[in-house]
Amino acid sequence: MSFSDPSSVAVVGASANPAKWGYWLARGALRGAHRRKVYLVNRSGAVVDGVATSPSLRDLPEVPELAVLCVPAETLPEVVDEALELGVRGFLGITAGLGVERESRMVDRIRAAGARMVGPNCLGVYDAATALELAWGNFTPGALGIVSQSGQLGLELAGLAGEAGIGVSRFVSVGNQADVTAAEMVAGLAGHDRTAVVVLYLESFMDGRRLVETLAELRSAGKPVIVLTVGTSQAGREAALSHTGALTSGTEVVEAACRAAGAILAQTPAQAVDVAQLLLDAPAPVGRRIAVVGDGGGQGAIAADVLSRHGLIVPPLGTASCAEVSALLPSGAGVRNPIDLAGAGERDLSTYSRLVEVLLGSGEVDGVVLTGYFGSYGADAPSLVEAELKVVDELGALARRHAMPVVVHSMSRDSAAVHALREHGVPTYATIDQVGWSLGPATELSLRTPRPLTTAPGLPGAPADESPDGYLAARAVIAALGVAFPGAARVRTAGDVPLAAAGLRPPYVVKAAWLAHKTEVGGVVVGLRNAEEAASALDGLRARLGEGDYVLEEMDDRPHTVELIVGGRRDPAFGPVVLVGVGGTVSELHRDIAVELAPVTEQEAARMLRGLKAFPLLDGWRGAPRTDLAAAAAAVAAVSRLVADRPDLAECEVNPLRVGQDGALAVDALVVQATEEKA
Amino acid sequence: MSFSDPSSVAVVGASANPAKWGYWLARGALRGAHRRKVYLVNRSGAVVDGVATSPSLRDLPEVPELAVLCVPAETLPEVVDEALELGVRGFLGITAGLGVERESRMVDRIRAAGARMVGPNCLGVYDAATALELAWGNFTPGALGIVSQSGQLGLELAGLAGEAGIGVSRFVSVGNQADVTAAEMVAGLAGHDRTAVVVLYLESFMDGRRLVETLAELRSAGKPVIVLTVGTSQAGREAALSHTGALTSGTEVVEAACRAAGAILAQTPAQAVDVAQLLLDAPAPVGRRIAVVGDGGGQGAIAADVLSRHGLIVPPLGTASCAEVSALLPSGAGVRNPIDLAGAGERDLSTYSRLVEVLLGSGEVDGVVLTGYFGSYGADAPSLVEAELKVVDELGALARRHAMPVVVHSMSRDSAAVHALREHGVPTYATIDQVGWSLGPATELSLRTPRPLTTAPGLPGAPADESPDGYLAARAVIAALGVAFPGAARVRTAGDVPLAAAGLRPPYVVKAAWLAHKTEVGGVVVGLRNAEEAASALDGLRARLGEGDYVLEEMDDRPHTVELIVGGRRDPAFGPVVLVGVGGTVSELHRDIAVELAPVTEQEAARMLRGLKAFPLLDGWRGAPRTDLAAAAAAVAAVSRLVADRPDLAECEVNPLRVGQDGALAVDALVVQATEEKA
Repeated sequence: MSFSDPSSVAVVGASANPAKWGYWLARGALRGAHRRKVYLVNRSGAVVDGVATSPSLRDLPEVPELAVLCVPAETLPEVVDEALELGVRGFLGITAGLGVERESRMVDRIRAAGARMVGPNCLGVYDAATALELAWGNFTPGALGIVSQSGQLGLELAGLAGEAGIGVSRFVSVGNQADVTAAEMVAGLAGHDRTAVVVLYLESFMDGRRLVETLAELRSAGKPVIVLTVGTSQAGREAALSHTGALTSGTEVVEAACRAAGAILAQTPAQAVDVAQLLLDAPAPVGRRIAVVGDGGGQGAIAADVLSRHGLIVPPLGTASCAEVSALLPSGAGVRNPIDLAGAGERDLSTYSRLVEVLLGSGEVDGVVLTGYFGSYGADAPSLVEAELKVVDELGALARRHAMPVVVHSMSRDSAAVHALREHGVPTYATIDQVGWSLGPATELSLRTPRPLTTAPGLPGAPADESPDGYLAARAVIAALGVAFPGAARVRTAGDVPLAAAGLRPPYVVKAAWLAHKTEVGGVVVGLRNAEEAASALDGLRARLGEGDYVLEEMDDRPHTVELIVGGRRDPAFGPVVLVGVGGTVSELHRDIAVELAPVTEQEAARMLRGLKAFPLLDGWRGAPRTDLAAAAAAVAAVSRLVADRPDLAECEVNPLRVGQDGALAVDALVVQATEEKA
Repeated sequence: MSFSDPSSVAVVGASANPAKWGYWLARGALRGAHRRKVYLVNRSGAVVDGVATSPSLRDLPEVPELAVLCVPAETLPEVVDEALELGVRGFLGITAGLGVERESRMVDRIRAAGARMVGPNCLGVYDAATALELAWGNFTPGALGIVSQSGQLGLELAGLAGEAGIGVSRFVSVGNQADVTAAEMVAGLAGHDRTAVVVLYLESFMDGRRLVETLAELRSAGKPVIVLTVGTSQAGREAALSHTGALTSGTEVVEAACRAAGAILAQTPAQAVDVAQLLLDAPAPVGRRIAVVGDGGGQGAIAADVLSRHGLIVPPLGTASCAEVSALLPSGAGVRNPIDLAGAGERDLSTYSRLVEVLLGSGEVDGVVLTGYFGSYGADAPSLVEAELKVVDELGALARRHAMPVVVHSMSRDSAAVHALREHGVPTYATIDQVGWSLGPATELSLRTPRPLTTAPGLPGAPADESPDGYLAARAVIAALGVAFPGAARVRTAGDVPLAAAGLRPPYVVKAAWLAHKTEVGGVVVGLRNAEEAASALDGLRARLGEGDYVLEEMDDRPHTVELIVGGRRDPAFGPVVLVGVGGTVSELHRDIAVELAPVTEQEAARMLRGLKAFPLLDGWRGAPRTDLAAAAAAVAAVSRLVADRPDLAECEVNPLRVGQDGALAVDALVVQATEEKA
């Protein structure tokens, strides 16, 4: 039961009243009557749009392959039972309000019979290729696949896709996902011919790890997925023992999942559809450098600002390119980038295409954005229609030939030229905002390939047999993965100190090893110059904190070190994640962290470090020496392997990891056992 | 010459060719022929749209009040000279490409004759009230005043205003501002009846301080201004001696100017027009708390996320309100906020207005956002047209009665209901993005009143007679304003130390007083426990840095201090500005700073501090004691007065200001003299 092209459909609860969904579902189903048998079921035998109905499924001449259920909640289970008994094996549950328990019992019976159900509480399914229209609303056939946990939001997406001229290939409102899940429906789109790009709206990620794989598969199949989600502020309420926990409970993990999957995370339906248009129409971006051509200096400058905000670069052109551009424009025109036509477009429309040709051939940019009046010439002056459409042809050909995006912001929303641009593979938008929020994420997507979520072979895996409570055990577990710690020894009383100190290099630190957040409670004394000072510090700690395992440790007093926090955690939806950020309270307030699904390779870890706003601190800030990035990246990768390999661990954290010119030292460590899902 | 309603107009360079601007200007001018004499001048005597032209201004039956100049650049000066000779006193210069020098000489002659010119290189002027249409393009009459340094961008704004149904009251493309400035044109809108909101596009701010006053006057006159600007990245290239300089050369100063003026800084034309619609149509927001009503859970949740990103709050409703909301909705509907209609809208459209009534009356929110299907019912089901329009009436009445904004995101872009909503004072947008970027800034504007840019009376002003080079002089100047410094004494050799130390409390610091960035070059030694250590440190410094004024200073070793950077600077456009941020390299990398035009009061300074992302550090972070905010604010206000009162100073900076539980101490200070504009 694919829910794509059933040979027969019955709409149970078909209605003659156009204010009811049963009417629209019946009407939609009948549009496919040339392709499949369509039966309408209505208890009172009403006539719907001139089509007779049957009083029950039992009265139909055959068992329909798919039953669309649009009946009152009270009668839903009995209708399902009747259908199962008749042999129906596919259900589309529109009906809402059944209640969790009755729904769950109903789904059990459906599954037991080997049947499947989409919904209940869904808005239906549409498939352009098979004339399957079992949903409320009007769909424009096209190339966008939509899978949505919210029916209304799915319809908004479909409406916007229609307006944008890209249309819908398939629409699935998954409703309560009582049986069939959104992930299954998305997976199904990999083999759905008409679907070229997918938008997925989800409010919760049940098996996030599996979903990431599905999205990555779609990407590999050339069908990128745009993800929309919500409620990221609420997720922050989650309690967590480590800083890592607090720092990875927002959007960060969903963003990391989308990166791993090669998917785009959009913020709103409008952005999602605009990005889809770009992915559908334009050649995949090969770089961030964009030439901006405006027919006024103001629009060019605004465009440059907007593109910069979306991670793109508007580089000044070199002297040779400037000269070529200049030759096409009147004196006084801006030629460095942004380029200002200064009226040249009005004088000769072909200036647009000649400019774009020069720019795409310059080797200095990876795409061109036109902003302003182009697309409106013909609409305002009918004598220019033909000339403008000729330029449209040329722009499309140039984009294809150079395999680089040409994107237009046109002051015209709906002219012949605008439609022609889109048909010629030149995405065209009514505002420059849309250009920015489409081209920026599409470029990021294009420059990043999805990565396999497996540990690289040949690297140490996490030992499975340790119970890592306390600092000493945490040290042992993390050190086994190759992360360096300062020399240390366990001490319980001042009497233990001289022997312990003899094996270590001063200055020393004494720590209360069993505490999770030692510094906050004064459980750490630093700068102890010799064994005597260390013994006295230990006495002081014991007096305040009581007996326990203390640690005498070599103090890392290397100059020019930068403190990082490195952590790993099991996200309830997406599984193991790894985090790195610059340490200290200020960094924490700024949430300047990089998060990825774990494990990551050392190369990926290095990229995480380079993405931090505070990265310059590691990279020789203001004349300080560069720190040992390779050592830092290796520690991040090691922690990521630990959390990925050990499902019995809920969180682990090295905080701080002190990175100096030569090596990185883990100066405190914490490992938290999972309480419920022990391996 | 107001450029608003001249009694007669001559278009010089009128053309019969619809591909030329001379044609469109002539056509536009003729549209006002019922109100004023319109003359067309064309050298070859062409007939334009059936209207005869004269070969020159000299051949007209009268001297026109305003001459529109659309002639080739080469002939412009002679046409102007001829016009001046004839007695023309108003010019609208469309012609571009004259060159700086010839333009400047031409404007000198215009001014000498007591005449004025808008432009040249402008796209013209439009005034809806006086049928003055001297611009290319089609304008929808309305309430938005547009003043633009870029003609094309102005036309984009006008086009968007037409699409949004708010229309244009007056449009001025100011071009090169060779004579009449954008600021003058904006000032003129204060008394322009039809103009209710203004959008100002500027690429450069010539007399920024004066402009701020003009915008504040417009705001006081009930005509808020939305500012658009560009190229903020380039400004960053400016060199500056202090950190303050580097930290205030981006958008920060323009943002500060807009705050001081009570203006909104928009990022794009689309946002500017959307904000304008909200300001025009809705009651001014009185708070940030918004109830979201969606007819699907997904749209409500997306809306809540978008509104949060724009500084608004979507608070959970209290039990009583939830019960009231619940009574209107089917079971299973979300009632806490966001509110999910769960199909109640389809069943009874009046649910929308009854819900909004409950919400606006709850006292728990300051406005309501509807998101989703409302506005589309009638368009999809003609039987619902009337019921939907009735709800529109009710929504408008509720917004007025409660004087709170009701804003709609409708999946319909162009239905009768959407138009009716706007007419009833309910701003309506096609995407939720637009709701967010309009309601957010409009709320900020409404909650903040413009402030006078003068020093509060009774506070110490800056002494005018000191030459503050070097740390000791900078200390003296800043201390005179009431900022506390640690005790200090000048020392040149180790022999000076014992006597100096006797008057000071250890531990000590020794600094090379003449260096601007002491720490970076090792010019500071801290933690000196007694006079001997201080003397030895001084010897070491002299050996490295040579002879000079050194300072022996009490070291601030109070626990739990937070270091701030406080700076002041003269911005080339906007004059004195003050900055505060949390000190240290990490903060600098995050640009977590607050900037305002100087001077600021202590209250304003405290608000700047509270706005920092790192403010929690000052406010008792993780159990640390709260710092002395009043002392910190007083120091910020003092630095702001210094830079405001002393035009001979280019920059001044206290870095760090160490704020403890009890008082704030300036631990280093720098004052830079202005090199050119000395008072």
